[in-house]
Amino acid sequence: MGALEEAHLAAAACACEEEEESDYIGLLAGEAAAGDAVEPAVRALLLGLGEDDRREGLLRTPKRVAKAFRDGTRGYRQKVKDIVQGALFPEVGVDKRTGSAGGTGGQVVVRDIELFSYCESCLLPFSIQCHVGYVPSGGRVVGLSKLSRVSDVFAKRLQNPQRLANEICGALHASIQPAGVAVALQCWHIPLPENLECKTLEGWIRTSHSSRSGVFEGESSTFWTDFLALVKLRGIDVEAKDHTVSIPWCPLRSHEVLLSNGLCKKNSTNGMVSAVTSMLLSLGEDPLRKELLGTPQRYVQWLMKFKACNLLDVKLNGFTLSNVSLYERLGGGTTDHGAIRSELHLPFCAQCEHHLLPFYGVVHIGYFDNGSGEGIDRSHFQALVHFYGCKLQVQERMTRQIAEAVYSVSHHGAMVVVEANHICMISRGIEKIRSNTATIAVLGQFLADPSAKACFLQNVLDSVGSAV
Amino acid sequence: MGALEEAHLAAAACACEEEEESDYIGLLAGEAAAGDAVEPAVRALLLGLGEDDRREGLLRTPKRVAKAFRDGTRGYRQKVKDIVQGALFPEVGVDKRTGSAGGTGGQVVVRDIELFSYCESCLLPFSIQCHVGYVPSGGRVVGLSKLSRVSDVFAKRLQNPQRLANEICGALHASIQPAGVAVALQCWHIPLPENLECKTLEGWIRTSHSSRSGVFEGESSTFWTDFLALVKLRGIDVEAKDHTVSIPWCPLRSHEVLLSNGLCKKNSTNGMVSAVTSMLLSLGEDPLRKELLGTPQRYVQWLMKFKACNLLDVKLNGFTLSNVSLYERLGGGTTDHGAIRSELHLPFCAQCEHHLLPFYGVVHIGYFDNGSGEGIDRSHFQALVHFYGCKLQVQERMTRQIAEAVYSVSHHGAMVVVEANHICMISRGIEKIRSNTATIAVLGQFLADPSAKACFLQNVLDSVGSAV
Repeated sequence: MGALEEAHLAAAACACEEEEESDYIGLLAGEAAAGDAVEPAVRALLLGLGEDDRREGLLRTPKRVAKAFRDGTRGYRQKVKDIVQGALFPEVGVDKRTGSAGGTGGQVVVRDIELFSYCESCLLPFSIQCHVGYVPSGGRVVGLSKLSRVSDVFAKRLQNPQRLANEICGALHASIQPAGVAVALQCWHIPLPENLECKTLEGWIRTSHSSRSGVFEGESSTFWTDFLALVKLRGIDVEAKDHTVSIPWCPLRSHEVLLSNGLCKKNSTNGMVSAVTSMLLSLGEDPLRKELLGTPQRYVQWLMKFKACNLLDVKLNGFTLSNVSLYERLGGGTTDHGAIRSELHLPFCAQCEHHLLPFYGVVHIGYFDNGSGEGIDRSHFQALVHFYGCKLQVQERMTRQIAEAVYSVSHHGAMVVVEANHICMISRGIEKIRSNTATIAVLGQFLADPSAKACFLQNVLDSVGSAV
Repeated sequence: MGALEEAHLAAAACACEEEEESDYIGLLAGEAAAGDAVEPAVRALLLGLGEDDRREGLLRTPKRVAKAFRDGTRGYRQKVKDIVQGALFPEVGVDKRTGSAGGTGGQVVVRDIELFSYCESCLLPFSIQCHVGYVPSGGRVVGLSKLSRVSDVFAKRLQNPQRLANEICGALHASIQPAGVAVALQCWHIPLPENLECKTLEGWIRTSHSSRSGVFEGESSTFWTDFLALVKLRGIDVEAKDHTVSIPWCPLRSHEVLLSNGLCKKNSTNGMVSAVTSMLLSLGEDPLRKELLGTPQRYVQWLMKFKACNLLDVKLNGFTLSNVSLYERLGGGTTDHGAIRSELHLPFCAQCEHHLLPFYGVVHIGYFDNGSGEGIDRSHFQALVHFYGCKLQVQERMTRQIAEAVYSVSHHGAMVVVEANHICMISRGIEKIRSNTATIAVLGQFLADPSAKACFLQNVLDSVGSAV
């Protein structure tokens, strides 16, 4: 296929985007070359994690991560002016007075724009609910989708919430030239793995920020009051206090002491830190910019939480052995099985080996006791889930591995249901924010006896209402 | 800029998509030429609506609609095989047995994939909540995002819910070659304008459909039972009866009698029907395919609901005159004003003049009575809202026009808040499903007295909890 034909196909792919889309993509000088820097960086990270980058599941991971990273940072290559150009509509028949129906109509607020960004302190994703208002002037209104598109340009860069709000506000003010712009953001930062919960954004660290220009400025601005009221109509109180927010909001920054005492000094991660630094450089970012100092270290610190760890093996062996002996002591190994027992909503956070992004949620485990009515302690299951969850994984394999481990202890049968949110499904191209994946593995008596399986599933279902 | 450079830029724009994205875009023969057919068709529709296609707001509408239409039907140009290729991962260390943890792990279900499609009966959008499950076989699992991407290929065509479910199921079965595939869809069709409500999907016509292959087939399939249970964990009962569904589900089909007695016979819409037929042809569709018979007529019937109508002018004059006289009879025109009165949650459905897609929601109107404590009857406001809403519009202008009309009757002051969902914001490229736009217009005493404005906004806010 010739280059021109390829160009035609590529153009067709782009046509599915907004009309100005094909116009506003610019490239940083040398971006193609810089993009190539990400793949070797990812390979270095995999090796640093003690992984074999030639194993099947990881073979295309560097390519995949590089593409996702380019996508997630495409805002560096987009220009606001080109997005807004051609989307300013004169509203004929109205005079030029400002901000009331006597002008071009009053305030316009697009509420609940869902965005995703990357934290500049740690390179992990954060989720944004964005509300944008402006007061038209000069007899011109802007196409509503542009408020969302311009916001996305800045979200698709390494950010912190306040600068994001400021940049959206400033860019809209400069490009639309309205009487004023108001931006309010509610942001959720992914927490440390141990604090993740299954429900979308539960356990995430929340913060609210706003930015305003022109007629929205000043304590007594009635436009700002109106903006707050219009956002409140959606049940959102922008000025409400954030009880959950830590300062600094990035959880890896608030654990900086641990960082400096720990991994940072280990020579073993130096190569990984350099690799992440090269990823920052590939964006045209300055790794010495104040906000980015320590970012590679923090991201590596996060990743290293998912290094396959021998220490945990010991812990797991403890589980297996002690419980096997417990089980045998209680009469295990006979053909009779006891009651179905359920250990539900065991939290986990794994790292998707295809995209190097977290997936997290809960594990439900079903097994049979030995007829004594005595089950296995929850802490053992939690250790098991942690062992199989806290590494580079895929959900399907993790489900099977946990089931097999439980089956090796509870010989009559084991059943596992895993429910997980995959960041790779929500922060990347397809952005299916609410999608959630369930996997199931069934062994022994649960496989032979549909009623046993149904009983366990019913236990899970009954627990959903009462679960946190 | 040379063609090759342009190709480079276009390729960069595509790179933000999934890795295989750039591979799987094919073109129907002559698609470029066919795409060009849509713009003149849209121009014909505008003229049929009695609009001046050279007025500012409509100038780029044909181009915009053509691009949105190409985007919304991009599934015709995508190939499933290319999406799935390269995303099948061998799960090493597991044997080939099927559907249990002893095989490649059990069932995998991605729940709550949000999609948008076009109804083949009327070309209006419908919203989809899609749940896809499969049981791996042959020791291979597929990347989770592929389940969403393949579903989207078929959603981005002219569809009906059952065929959509069947096509997703069939395509996944053929490309992944699993032990079986299960697909469950909950679909919401946009209702007739008069039935639209402000809240997302409220008032929309719901239906549920499913499709299954392989091990999911048969009444006694435990895999199907498990699938239903796993979906139920998200609070979704796929097999629950749809109380709201009409048969046929497309509301324009169930009003077919009206259609055949009405517009269909009018020569005046023949040109519009031909225009829509040419849009179908541009997709490579056969307008004589059974399901598409009458589709152009139905779409034109929908559009004609938004034709600027002189009949309504009369009705509105009735409002204005009768109320002005009422107002004057009650002492209007004096400098004293009475109490603030609110007429809230007046529903409307307009057609966005930039995209020829509906935006709909509610209008809140504030005004002053003349001190007598007697307000204007709600039905008059509803007629006013209908007059300004039911045409090609932009929300900003509509808000101002309603405010000015109310002000012309209630001389002390008028205030209008409009809250609307824009289909162009959710079914097109940016897919901000939950975004909602508020506009506000303020005149007279409401402008001079911030406490009057605050009082009205508080009325609106108080009503939100109690509103339907």
